[in-house]
Amino acid sequence: MAAFTLAELQARLGGEIRGDGSVLLDDVSSLSRAGAGQLGFLVSGKHLAEARASSAAALVIPASLDQTLPMPCLAVANPHAVFARATTLLRPEPDLAPGAHPSAVIGDDVVLGEGVRVGPGAVIGAGSRIGAGSRIGALVSIGPGCEIGRDCLLHARACVQHGCQLGDRVILHPGCVIGSDGFGLAWEAGRWLKVPQVGRVVIGDDVEIGANTTIDRGALDDTVIEPGAKLDNLIHIAHNCRIGRHTAIAACVGMAGSTQIGANCQIAGAAMISGHLDICDRVTLTGGALIAKDIREPGTYSSAMPFMPHREWLRNAAHLRHLDQMAQRIKELEKVLYKQAQQPE
Amino acid sequence: MAAFTLAELQARLGGEIRGDGSVLLDDVSSLSRAGAGQLGFLVSGKHLAEARASSAAALVIPASLDQTLPMPCLAVANPHAVFARATTLLRPEPDLAPGAHPSAVIGDDVVLGEGVRVGPGAVIGAGSRIGAGSRIGALVSIGPGCEIGRDCLLHARACVQHGCQLGDRVILHPGCVIGSDGFGLAWEAGRWLKVPQVGRVVIGDDVEIGANTTIDRGALDDTVIEPGAKLDNLIHIAHNCRIGRHTAIAACVGMAGSTQIGANCQIAGAAMISGHLDICDRVTLTGGALIAKDIREPGTYSSAMPFMPHREWLRNAAHLRHLDQMAQRIKELEKVLYKQAQQPE
Amino acid sequence: MAAFTLAELQARLGGEIRGDGSVLLDDVSSLSRAGAGQLGFLVSGKHLAEARASSAAALVIPASLDQTLPMPCLAVANPHAVFARATTLLRPEPDLAPGAHPSAVIGDDVVLGEGVRVGPGAVIGAGSRIGAGSRIGALVSIGPGCEIGRDCLLHARACVQHGCQLGDRVILHPGCVIGSDGFGLAWEAGRWLKVPQVGRVVIGDDVEIGANTTIDRGALDDTVIEPGAKLDNLIHIAHNCRIGRHTAIAACVGMAGSTQIGANCQIAGAAMISGHLDICDRVTLTGGALIAKDIREPGTYSSAMPFMPHREWLRNAAHLRHLDQMAQRIKELEKVLYKQAQQPE
Repeated sequence: MAAFTLAELQARLGGEIRGDGSVLLDDVSSLSRAGAGQLGFLVSGKHLAEARASSAAALVIPASLDQTLPMPCLAVANPHAVFARATTLLRPEPDLAPGAHPSAVIGDDVVLGEGVRVGPGAVIGAGSRIGAGSRIGALVSIGPGCEIGRDCLLHARACVQHGCQLGDRVILHPGCVIGSDGFGLAWEAGRWLKVPQVGRVVIGDDVEIGANTTIDRGALDDTVIEPGAKLDNLIHIAHNCRIGRHTAIAACVGMAGSTQIGANCQIAGAAMISGHLDICDRVTLTGGALIAKDIREPGTYSSAMPFMPHREWLRNAAHLRHLDQMAQRIKELEKVLYKQAQQPE
Repeated sequence: MAAFTLAELQARLGGEIRGDGSVLLDDVSSLSRAGAGQLGFLVSGKHLAEARASSAAALVIPASLDQTLPMPCLAVANPHAVFARATTLLRPEPDLAPGAHPSAVIGDDVVLGEGVRVGPGAVIGAGSRIGAGSRIGALVSIGPGCEIGRDCLLHARACVQHGCQLGDRVILHPGCVIGSDGFGLAWEAGRWLKVPQVGRVVIGDDVEIGANTTIDRGALDDTVIEPGAKLDNLIHIAHNCRIGRHTAIAACVGMAGSTQIGANCQIAGAAMISGHLDICDRVTLTGGALIAKDIREPGTYSSAMPFMPHREWLRNAAHLRHLDQMAQRIKELEKVLYKQAQQPE
Repeated sequence: MAAFTLAELQARLGGEIRGDGSVLLDDVSSLSRAGAGQLGFLVSGKHLAEARASSAAALVIPASLDQTLPMPCLAVANPHAVFARATTLLRPEPDLAPGAHPSAVIGDDVVLGEGVRVGPGAVIGAGSRIGAGSRIGALVSIGPGCEIGRDCLLHARACVQHGCQLGDRVILHPGCVIGSDGFGLAWEAGRWLKVPQVGRVVIGDDVEIGANTTIDRGALDDTVIEPGAKLDNLIHIAHNCRIGRHTAIAACVGMAGSTQIGANCQIAGAAMISGHLDICDRVTLTGGALIAKDIREPGTYSSAMPFMPHREWLRNAAHLRHLDQMAQRIKELEKVLYKQAQQPE
């Protein structure tokens, strides 16, 4: 681990020091577990009691906080972001050894940029180009003809299939698959015929793709993940989808083919989106939402069935099969009652 | 890429040429992006305007189309299927080098059929047999005692566990796992005891399995995927399931143990099917359907909760916890009203 | 395969022999497919007819069964558990060769305990420690600084990221990812900033993790899977979750960040649990349940929308958008009717 005084962190990260800037920090921690040498953080006044009780050596706090804390603080506009940057300084991740490990298999005409590191057992297909500073983890598979940008981080066992393209600073987590075939089938003479998938996956700068997420290559045109989009684990993106800039998608989401999601959307976990839809910018989907139509207005959309004790559910759910009948019965009651009401007594 | 005249394609794929058969084609494309040398296609008259405006060098069109298009056309009964075959000719995928890469680890008594190709870092366990013409991608893991048919394509990082069996022309996409243990547990003395899973996975001819899909081996008997079934990405098939011929299953579907799905079914994305069920032939499930009982009649089944703006959802969803009460209140109203109606006034 | 007489099995597993204990057994089978030399089992009197018709050489049966069967039987208190143990004896799984395969890449300062086996192409990062008797399958990736306990079984292509910790007898299935980064993002100046994830995943003794399941490392503190918990395939466990002892989670479940599940819970397939929740001990969730609030009482909870033929669903589902209106109309009817009833006629 690295060590910095609070004043040295301030010099790099900005903000205002409250208290003793000479305190030496060599780690980060949550408030409750912090100890000597550890930096913690506070996003708002909500956790003030916890912050006071913390043994953290120093805290990153919101500049707006007008309370005095018992430890030295770095007061900043955006404590979450500044603490993230401090973590990068104080807790550098273990890195691959420089160069390409002798067990890696690097194909013909592969171009490795300056400072590229390739881990044990990684396989890079013929003609692929890896940008300067990128790190290719253990047992990663990169097919032939791929373009990987600069300063990318492909964690162990990530997979990029032939011809796909990644921008700069892209992060791929273990087990994710970029460029598997889309699910293209033509029905012919009583059986499915495979439709070759010849598009690519094109991923923009600063995209992060979670563990075991799969992004299928386009059928003819490309599947596109725009710059700054962030995808969590176990997500399925089908062929020819497009995900807009800075859209964040939580785990277990599925998107069927040719659907487009706009920019700055937030898709909560397990949402499922049908194919050939158009979801506009700044849409939030809540957990488990099933989206089967276009969304043309920014806003929050939901479709979850609320949970309840199983016995209550048994009683209530049965009526879901008869809602139409219930509605008819209400209509009938209204008709009878209105008729009565209109009759002279 | 390969190049063919339209007439050469017709000689291989059938159909009738309308226009100049000597046009040379060396690629495929979507209508909107097509350019010189590229073949496009049209499945129906629906996209006629787009076809007219396309710069494609030639198109595959339905024989039934009675309109004249500005470019040479190949008129066929099933344009989607013929275009798929043309794509295979015009855009051959990059292949592995002949033979077994020196970094591959091939166990004792492995039998590799004629023309088998094995990619870098692949591992094939003792006693496994790989049929002629099959290709085993980079970093694929095949356990001991497996049988892989002829002309199979195991993409990079696919995994087949010990003793499993694949038919001919099976395609496995990256990261899929065939033959992991089923989730078999016996409760004993306040804790779970693992129940060894000693069945196999048996996969028929012409099956395709998507990226990161998992198919568990049977507990005692086998898990079976019948010929021609097609599975998309991130699907879970539990132990002792059986999937019928030519059934297509979209991404993110889960099937619990010992469930059987018939032939020619279409299961849309994110459908979830409970264990020990029997789903008959020719059943369609729509996206997100939760199936908890047998289905004995062909047809389409659904259970999705429709999505709505979150504010509306908040208002509506609350009543789902009180549907039974609503039904009782309607009944009560009917009782009172009928009684009134029957009373002499 | 190994062979044992029924009497030898009894000596190891307990129970009472009914019939000829000298019958030789060298395999296990389901009742319907059993033949010579094969041991079957019966959990209750429910499948008695099938047991009578079985060609099994012997059966494990419940001690409480007062019926005589045509084959020798081992009568025990818990037939499922005893049959599981018999299976382990009769059908040992293929094992890795002793020692470390020459193609494995073992980093500096790695400590391999006595009898550890390492398969082809596996990669173990610097400073990791593997406990005695553990087996590391083909193409497994273990990052630097990991602690793996004794007698663990990491199947082919499992992945453990740097610094994570596994107890004894942990089983990881192919493709699972332990210790990928949590989905931590801070919004800053119109884009997402990655929040480094510096916690670990800590997995207790006797835990089993299914194929392609992902468990994210904690943001600052650890993600914890307590001893005896069992997780099926394609599950997502987000950062800082905690799963209690002996809790079993079926496939396709997702858990968002910082949620805690108690001990002895049973979570059925495709349940989705929001973040920052507290689920108490002994909770059962049924398939597809969407849990968005704390659960403080043991019991069974559900939220599935029941499935129905699509035509019925179309009629019924439309009303879900108008439940609030329906409730208002019922209220109105009650008001009118009560008023009438209270009026003197």
